[in-house]
Amino acid sequence: MDGFTLSLRPKALPIRAGKPIAIIHENIARQLGIFPLDRIEIKNPEIKKRIIAIVDVTDSMVSTGEIGLFEDTINELKVKDSRALEVRAVERPRSVEYIKKKILGKALSEAEIKTIVSDLDQNRLSDVEAGAFMSAVYIHGYNMAETIAMTKALVENGKRIKFDVSPIVDKHSIGGINGRATMIIVPIVASAGLYIPKTSSRSITSASGTADAMEVLTNVCLDVEQIKEITEKIGAVICWGGALNLAPVDEKIIKVEYPLSLNPQGQIIASVLAKKASVSSKYIVIDIPVGPGLKIEDNKQGELLAEKFIAVGRRLGMHIEAVLTDGSQPSGPAFGPALEAKHAMRILEGKCFDSLAQKSCELAGVLFELVGKAKRGQGFDYAKKILKSGKALKKMKQIIKAQGGRVSSSKQIKPAPYKEKIIAKREGEIARIDVRRLINIARLAGAPYDKKAGVLLNVESGDNVSKGDVLYTIFAENKRKLALAVREAKRSSGVRLSKIILKKII
Amino acid sequence: MDGFTLSLRPKALPIRAGKPIAIIHENIARQLGIFPLDRIEIKNPEIKKRIIAIVDVTDSMVSTGEIGLFEDTINELKVKDSRALEVRAVERPRSVEYIKKKILGKALSEAEIKTIVSDLDQNRLSDVEAGAFMSAVYIHGYNMAETIAMTKALVENGKRIKFDVSPIVDKHSIGGINGRATMIIVPIVASAGLYIPKTSSRSITSASGTADAMEVLTNVCLDVEQIKEITEKIGAVICWGGALNLAPVDEKIIKVEYPLSLNPQGQIIASVLAKKASVSSKYIVIDIPVGPGLKIEDNKQGELLAEKFIAVGRRLGMHIEAVLTDGSQPSGPAFGPALEAKHAMRILEGKCFDSLAQKSCELAGVLFELVGKAKRGQGFDYAKKILKSGKALKKMKQIIKAQGGRVSSSKQIKPAPYKEKIIAKREGEIARIDVRRLINIARLAGAPYDKKAGVLLNVESGDNVSKGDVLYTIFAENKRKLALAVREAKRSSGVRLSKIILKKII
Repeated sequence: MDGFTLSLRPKALPIRAGKPIAIIHENIARQLGIFPLDRIEIKNPEIKKRIIAIVDVTDSMVSTGEIGLFEDTINELKVKDSRALEVRAVERPRSVEYIKKKILGKALSEAEIKTIVSDLDQNRLSDVEAGAFMSAVYIHGYNMAETIAMTKALVENGKRIKFDVSPIVDKHSIGGINGRATMIIVPIVASAGLYIPKTSSRSITSASGTADAMEVLTNVCLDVEQIKEITEKIGAVICWGGALNLAPVDEKIIKVEYPLSLNPQGQIIASVLAKKASVSSKYIVIDIPVGPGLKIEDNKQGELLAEKFIAVGRRLGMHIEAVLTDGSQPSGPAFGPALEAKHAMRILEGKCFDSLAQKSCELAGVLFELVGKAKRGQGFDYAKKILKSGKALKKMKQIIKAQGGRVSSSKQIKPAPYKEKIIAKREGEIARIDVRRLINIARLAGAPYDKKAGVLLNVESGDNVSKGDVLYTIFAENKRKLALAVREAKRSSGVRLSKIILKKII
Repeated sequence: MDGFTLSLRPKALPIRAGKPIAIIHENIARQLGIFPLDRIEIKNPEIKKRIIAIVDVTDSMVSTGEIGLFEDTINELKVKDSRALEVRAVERPRSVEYIKKKILGKALSEAEIKTIVSDLDQNRLSDVEAGAFMSAVYIHGYNMAETIAMTKALVENGKRIKFDVSPIVDKHSIGGINGRATMIIVPIVASAGLYIPKTSSRSITSASGTADAMEVLTNVCLDVEQIKEITEKIGAVICWGGALNLAPVDEKIIKVEYPLSLNPQGQIIASVLAKKASVSSKYIVIDIPVGPGLKIEDNKQGELLAEKFIAVGRRLGMHIEAVLTDGSQPSGPAFGPALEAKHAMRILEGKCFDSLAQKSCELAGVLFELVGKAKRGQGFDYAKKILKSGKALKKMKQIIKAQGGRVSSSKQIKPAPYKEKIIAKREGEIARIDVRRLINIARLAGAPYDKKAGVLLNVESGDNVSKGDVLYTIFAENKRKLALAVREAKRSSGVRLSKIILKKII
């Protein structure tokens, strides 16, 4: 349909679409020979500017002489008045053909994956196309070459931070949901002279992300220059990765994966390693929590993923070790940004050494062994020594200060003022703690938005409790939120007791 | 997250989205614990009206106190002023879970398919989810039970026409692209006392749909009552199916299939049979054109599809016969609504009996044999007798008149005034006629929007031509369109010649 051009007056629609979408009348669509989700080229003859837009069709919003354009497109085309634009049908982007190829079960080449990532970056694909792609990737998977190509493409489409120091190390947890081991590992490894520019996320569906918890102590919105400067000076940052534009297409892919919880292994690997590559990490420990209801449900699945991480990393020049951890139990007693930050500080202060501290030293130990700071088998002891020595606490205080914060002790962190204790209704042994349920209760109490709200456990699995013992305390910023959370906790506490005496043998 | 409600002021966005989409600030999304494409319930406390909307997240279009709503949603919620609406997060519709199930390769139950179709009908699914679904259906296919369930669900979600006469017959072509056999078959079978309420489509990507061609002769926009009345009275209608709301979800699915040309066989069968069931057809002939570049590329694929059509039809109480036809050659000489209508009328008038007439009598013959009007093997002769007798022409005139038209002869149909002949540059035998290319040329000339524009072939495959002979004539409504089409035809005519004398043996 080359060569057939229509003149249409722009009609500005006062919202932003985030994508170049053009709305045309159904009669115009017929003249152009196109369906919804086809593409047109729109040219502003006044300034010779052209863009490609995805078509939506209406029988009423615009007339047959008009083309409806959203604010972002109006701005991009520099439309200033109602003078007509030139519109013609164009071919679909090539990536649509490559998506079809993936649907047909064929492997994509590096160039094809690069084109898809670039078209996602430029918002050239419709949601239908993006959804179909992720569904096909989930069903057929990526082979090794595709995973590597996807990782490279994600990195190339974003900013990169390069450091003048080494070694740059990193850690990543696949779906860890509470605890904040990061806030313990990072100061430990930085104390030993390694460099760890840690970018982390805010929580949407859990009670706190690392960025939420760290924000209780200090500023987490650093720019690329600040990350470079602070990391090179004191060895570490712990900041929010969301606004940095590192591997930005990854965020778009995650949005497409989210509604159907599609997490193809190859895409997980590419997503994680692209983020690490974009901060130039060379030595990486991957924490893979395993447990029912988690992304990785059993050890076999976990081992397979670990092997792939290591193999893909090797091809990208990264030294990776992956560790399977028990994800069926809470990682520390705290749920909520301030409570989790306070508990991490208490561990750094040497006030407790629980399973979260243990896990953090193990992961830090893996990094020490990877870079050769400790002999094989001695990394954990080395990490624990640094933690116990107080050096990690000192390093954490430097990080907090360098990022602009003033908190220097766990005592300064106060939970929200309204609280209620949830108590055991009978004696028994703690059989299971339902992490998902505690997160929901912490969220009803206001976390992560209310930073001081959340849940603090008094018990661990295997503890024996008597009737009336405190299982956990709920904290909230006001009575209404506290009542909502308490009502939910009373419906079902999330802490399951088994009888201590199962059977009496007479 | 039950129970957590926010009050947000409505901000009307003056466009229609076609779906309930709500735009909220990213901080509000965090408070509600939701991502883009999650769902919220919006309640207007003034009138107790609630709707479920799909969430989009912004950092600028609305403030943290507002919720952006499109015109259709504003109307549905009866929002009249800026008084706050109550907003809370709700679970995803169950169909999202069923889509995930299909992605995982499991067969869906009848109830699950019904839920997906109903949620598509109510616009409860996002484009990402719909795209992922069609991709999974394409990859894994439907089994027989799923195909039947999809057909039933599509029918149940639309209007149905029930007739007080019988037998109701029908024909359908899977991707026929020119010719309009329908306009010959329908009057033939109606002349013999069968009832055929034929709904047909307009073209988007070809030079004419049956509805476009029929519209040259008469009105094609009938409502359900008119279809019933005219069919019962004179045996047939040929009308546009688009606005009738018969199996409306099918249209939505076709929109999702379109961008990636995903045509899963099971979905094709469900789509066709749902349309037939919604007009209560009992005896159906399916024309499956086979050829390279068509939906069905070879006989084996065609036979498989035919068998499935018959089997699914049987389970739905329909008597189906499917016929494979040669789709590699044009079905008649005309491309464009008026040219195709004129040619069909000429066949009915007995002025020519070409391959299109032959094919039409064969398909009508199958219907006669299916309902027992003719013995096996004698349907074609019976159909041809009716055509030759002039009864079919008489019936066509009745149909045209009943639908409100006045055309009664092929002579009344005039092509567009600007024309140019495309001639053979050398002598040779017509080896192949590229239907897709002729359609493109007809479309550049203005078809199907300009009804009288198009292409009329002078030759058929196998004809011998001399240098200077006319291959075809292009018709257009103005010089500009004619020039566009002629330029394209001169670049490559679409008619391939082979030498008559391939090799001289001396």
